[in-house]
Formats: sequence, structure tokens, C-alpha cells
Amino acid sequence: MDKTHAFRPGEFAMIDRIFAPLATSPGALGLTDDAALVALKPGQEMVVTADTLVEGVHFFRDDPPELIAQKALRVNLSDLAAKGAEPLGYLLTLSLAPWIDEDWLKSFANGLGADQMEFGIALLGGDTTATPGPLTLSITAMGSVGLGMMIRRGGARPGDLVFVSGTIGDAGGGLAVLKGEAADASPSAREVLIGRYRRPTPRLGLGRLLPPLASASLDVSDGLLADLAHIAEVSAVGIVIEVGSIPLTPSLRELWGNSDEAVIRAATAGDDYELAFTAPAILRERVVAAAEAAGVSITEIGRVQAGSGVLLLDRAGNRLPVEKSGFTHF
Amino acid sequence: MDKTHAFRPGEFAMIDRIFAPLATSPGALGLTDDAALVALKPGQEMVVTADTLVEGVHFFRDDPPELIAQKALRVNLSDLAAKGAEPLGYLLTLSLAPWIDEDWLKSFANGLGADQMEFGIALLGGDTTATPGPLTLSITAMGSVGLGMMIRRGGARPGDLVFVSGTIGDAGGGLAVLKGEAADASPSAREVLIGRYRRPTPRLGLGRLLPPLASASLDVSDGLLADLAHIAEVSAVGIVIEVGSIPLTPSLRELWGNSDEAVIRAATAGDDYELAFTAPAILRERVVAAAEAAGVSITEIGRVQAGSGVLLLDRAGNRLPVEKSGFTHF
Repeated sequence: MDKTHAFRPGEFAMIDRIFAPLATSPGALGLTDDAALVALKPGQEMVVTADTLVEGVHFFRDDPPELIAQKALRVNLSDLAAKGAEPLGYLLTLSLAPWIDEDWLKSFANGLGADQMEFGIALLGGDTTATPGPLTLSITAMGSVGLGMMIRRGGARPGDLVFVSGTIGDAGGGLAVLKGEAADASPSAREVLIGRYRRPTPRLGLGRLLPPLASASLDVSDGLLADLAHIAEVSAVGIVIEVGSIPLTPSLRELWGNSDEAVIRAATAGDDYELAFTAPAILRERVVAAAEAAGVSITEIGRVQAGSGVLLLDRAGNRLPVEKSGFTHF
Repeated sequence: MDKTHAFRPGEFAMIDRIFAPLATSPGALGLTDDAALVALKPGQEMVVTADTLVEGVHFFRDDPPELIAQKALRVNLSDLAAKGAEPLGYLLTLSLAPWIDEDWLKSFANGLGADQMEFGIALLGGDTTATPGPLTLSITAMGSVGLGMMIRRGGARPGDLVFVSGTIGDAGGGLAVLKGEAADASPSAREVLIGRYRRPTPRLGLGRLLPPLASASLDVSDGLLADLAHIAEVSAVGIVIEVGSIPLTPSLRELWGNSDEAVIRAATAGDDYELAFTAPAILRERVVAAAEAAGVSITEIGRVQAGSGVLLLDRAGNRLPVEKSGFTHF
């Protein structure tokens, strides 16, 4: 890692020692060089994505450092999954606030190390600097995909089916619990929801099977409906979603109930990091088989049609109004 | 760009409009997707580097936004240059402080746009978020280099010559002027030095000619002597530098004088972003020709020998002591 400016004198060597074991790929050059090397197999191209997390905006100072590290890595891996890419490596830039100490850094590195094992990715390099402000970390993740095979947002066509992986709204429920909104939810439900907020699961296993099947894909970060609106906009199509088909966990239903309003809240909450994707109807069985092979549940929640925007229908087939900042209603 | 969390409501569309014209390569997908695509020609591999700049640490809030943008991009391009890589594209993550407004962002984007034209690189994607703290920006730059041709830090061998591009210490002098240390320097000298501090020149033209010639290379950011110590350490060699041969501008000599102490101060100041590299003595003429072809001055400042660390000799050949935080003395 570059050490352009001192964190605290003499401490960069300590930081290097903590992070060096994460640089397991030869291209990282043991973090001793100005840059890292990444090779691609013939017929592959590189998929690159970056996300930043800021203390007080995306996480709390008291959150376990392992989970802050894993969330930062996983939101990037989730982008690679949505694009059908295989993880290659990542760069980490850390702006360290004055309150960070060696124990915190060790726990943070441990969190990264555990996820590197789980998801088959390794640290390639980055930069460490001091900041007088909040802890800020950016990860740039690189993955590989067959030439021309990256699943874009803009490929949805009328007649395609709309699928979502896992369940929706749990992270939003977890954040609500952390903010004190617990109502009647049981301790175990609260724990499930908080875990889903703090440690999203990138759907890499499913994502890598989707390039031959999906016509458009993204990961749900702004909220299911807002993100489907992104697909609709870039693909120049309309999307119809049946509210009753959006998959919610029993834990979230304990917290928010079973009403259409609860489902809409779940579908506009964000931070799910599930895959939302479209596929031609003729490929339905192959999509279902791919999800089974990946060991990930998927749910068919709607269809693509000519037009624009996202239309939400209630269980009786009536159009539901949706009001939510960030969701582009049509 | 991802918009995981609101900057101010409704303003992300504005930010997208400002940055979209910078995304000129097809792989950026107009910044409308979760990730960008980068292809490599056969026989090439990718060189990746990242650097972060923090308000109050690496620049001042009142610095012209164009120059903050260009410094952030150029310090990364300088790493690519030092590795002998050709720029491919970059990702930008911006944590926007509350004081940032639309005019600031437009000027910032203008600065990037001008440098994109000058250095042949384009924005691929990134992330924009809000921060309650200082403006923080990270750039991850990607370049290409022939397979196995990246110039590392660890290839210096006894007998090699040591070269540096341009002049050393100007940025440190510029920072000193900005901090009020102007002494007898003329207005024009001050302007030159401040310009060198604010807007380093990545030596891409020279760097791309060095892979067949240089045995080790890096860009000078910590200070010439500290950075040569990095080469010495990773290469497991010693480096001898003649203080009288270190190239200083007349402007810096106006500020700091002509003494050995002035040269040592220049050689430990940092932020030069010149290339420091080693090459076998037998290739001296070819190195000189490459620098002429690139239109960049280079100076032979010393040689590599068996041993460790960096030894500084005065004009009479006597060893000079160097005391400076960050410089590993041997």
C-alpha cells in the first residue's frame, strides 16, 4: 500500500503487517509495490466496480469492525454477482479516523480474511491515509466475465419474466430495529434482521450462472422498486410487479405485518443486495434450475412489458400507488 | 455511478449529469450500470493502483476544484507511469462534504475532463456518497502493460545506474511557500513551486518507454531518499547517491539556497511525482535516448551496489547524515 502521508508516525509498518497476509495473490506483489497486476484469461474481460462506506452514513462507529469490513467487501461482490462476474481481486483505500487503533485494524483485517476465504477473492493493494473526519473506506472490486457476456441493466425485453433472489426488506427491517423500532418482533427475528442489514450475502453462485440466461440484472441496493425502475429506464420498457409475490421472511412479517403496505415498505427499503433480474419466459425452467444448482431461492415477481416505469399491482390486480423518495414513479 | 445513499435529495441526477460527459469509453456504459467493462489486448496484463486525497490532509478546502481533481488523477497516473503502463481508465469515489455545491462539482469535473484529454484516459465509474466530514476522494486507475513487463520496485541490481526525471523538491518548496515560508524568493519562483505542488506531471511518456530498460522504478511521493530506500529494501541492494547531482530548479534554489542541506531538504520533501528508476549501466545511452524521445529531462544521480539502504555522499565524496521521519537510514 502507498503511504503518502503519515497516519501516526511509525504506524504504517504496523498497518502493513496487519494487511499483508490478505495479499495472497501473486499480482499483489506482497503490497510492496506502487501497483498490482491482474491478468485475464483469453476470451475474458474485466468487470470493475467501486463503493464507499462512511462512518455515520453507512455504518455506526460501534459496529463490529469485522462486519464493517465484510459489508464493504460484500456490497462490491454483490455488484460483481449481478453482472455475472467471477471475483478476481480488490483494492482497499482506508481513511483512518483518529479513534482507530491497532485492535480495531486487526479485527477489520480478520473480517476481510474470513470473507476472502468464503468468496475466493484477495486484496491486491490500495492506500492508507489519515483523516480528521469519519472513517471512510472505498473498495474497488475486479471480476472477470466472458467477452460480451456481462449482464447489463439495459437488456430487458417485453415478455421477459422478473425474478428476485432471497427475500426483500430484511435489511430495512434490521435498520429499523437498530433505530429502536422493535414493536412485537421476537428477539430471534430481530437478530435475523440485524444480521441481514449488517452482513449482506453476495449471490455470486447464482450470478455466475446467469450470463447465458438473464437479459438484465442488478443488485438491490436502493430498494427493489427503485432498482427495477433503473432496469425499466435503461432498457426502455415497463415492469409490472405483483405485490403478493414479493418474498418476505417470517421475521420481517413479525416486525411489519402482512399488509400490502408492509410489502411496499420492504420493496422500497433498500440494502438488500439480492439479485433482481429479467429473463425470457422460454428460459424459466433453466433459470429455476440454475437457482437450485446455486442453492439460492428465487421468486418470479412480475413481467416486462412495453411502456415505461414500474407498475405495482395488489393481490386483486389493482394498481397500487407508491410514494417514496428515490423511487421513480410513472 | 452507484447512489447508495442520498447526498441531498434530488441532487444525484445533477451529479450524474455533471460526470456523464467524462465517461467517454464504451466500457463505462454511460455510468448507467453497476459496473464497468475493461478489455485487454492479447499479451497484455492490467496494472491497478489506488490513491485517496482528504481535505485538510492532502489539499486545502479553498484550493481550486480543478486542481484537486487533477492532483487526484495525476498521482494515480504517476503510479502507472512508474510501472511502465499505458492508462486504460479510472474509477472515482467521492465522499461529498456539506460545503460542496454544484459550481464546485462542475469545476471539479472540468479539471478531470481537461486531464482526460491530456493523458488519454476516461472515467469508467465509481460511487458518490455524502459525508459529514472532510471531502474525501479516491481514484483507482487501471493501465495495461505487456505480460511480465511491469517495472517493479524489486529489480535493482549492483552496478545499475540510478536516474530521476525532472527536478526534485519543487512540490515541497511550493508547500513551504503556501505555509508562509517565502523568504527572498521572487513571485515567479513562488508561482512555479506552488504550481508543481498543486499539479504534478505524471511522466507517462517516459514511463511507457522504460519497461525494456529499467530494472526498478517508482514515482517519488514520500521523498526521493525515502523512495530510493524502498527500492533498495525490496531489491535487497544498497544505493549510493551524490548530493551534487540531484537536480533542483532555479526557483527552488531561490527559496532554499545552494547548500547540501537545501538539496537534502529537497530530497526528503516528497510529492514530486517524478520517476526514480534504475537501469543496467550498459543501457545508459538507450535510457538517455528514451528520455529525449519522451521530451523529459533525466539526471543520473547515483548507482546501485551490494549492501542495503541509501548512502548520500557530498560533493567531496564524504558520507552525509540524513535525519528525516519516513526516511529509513542505514
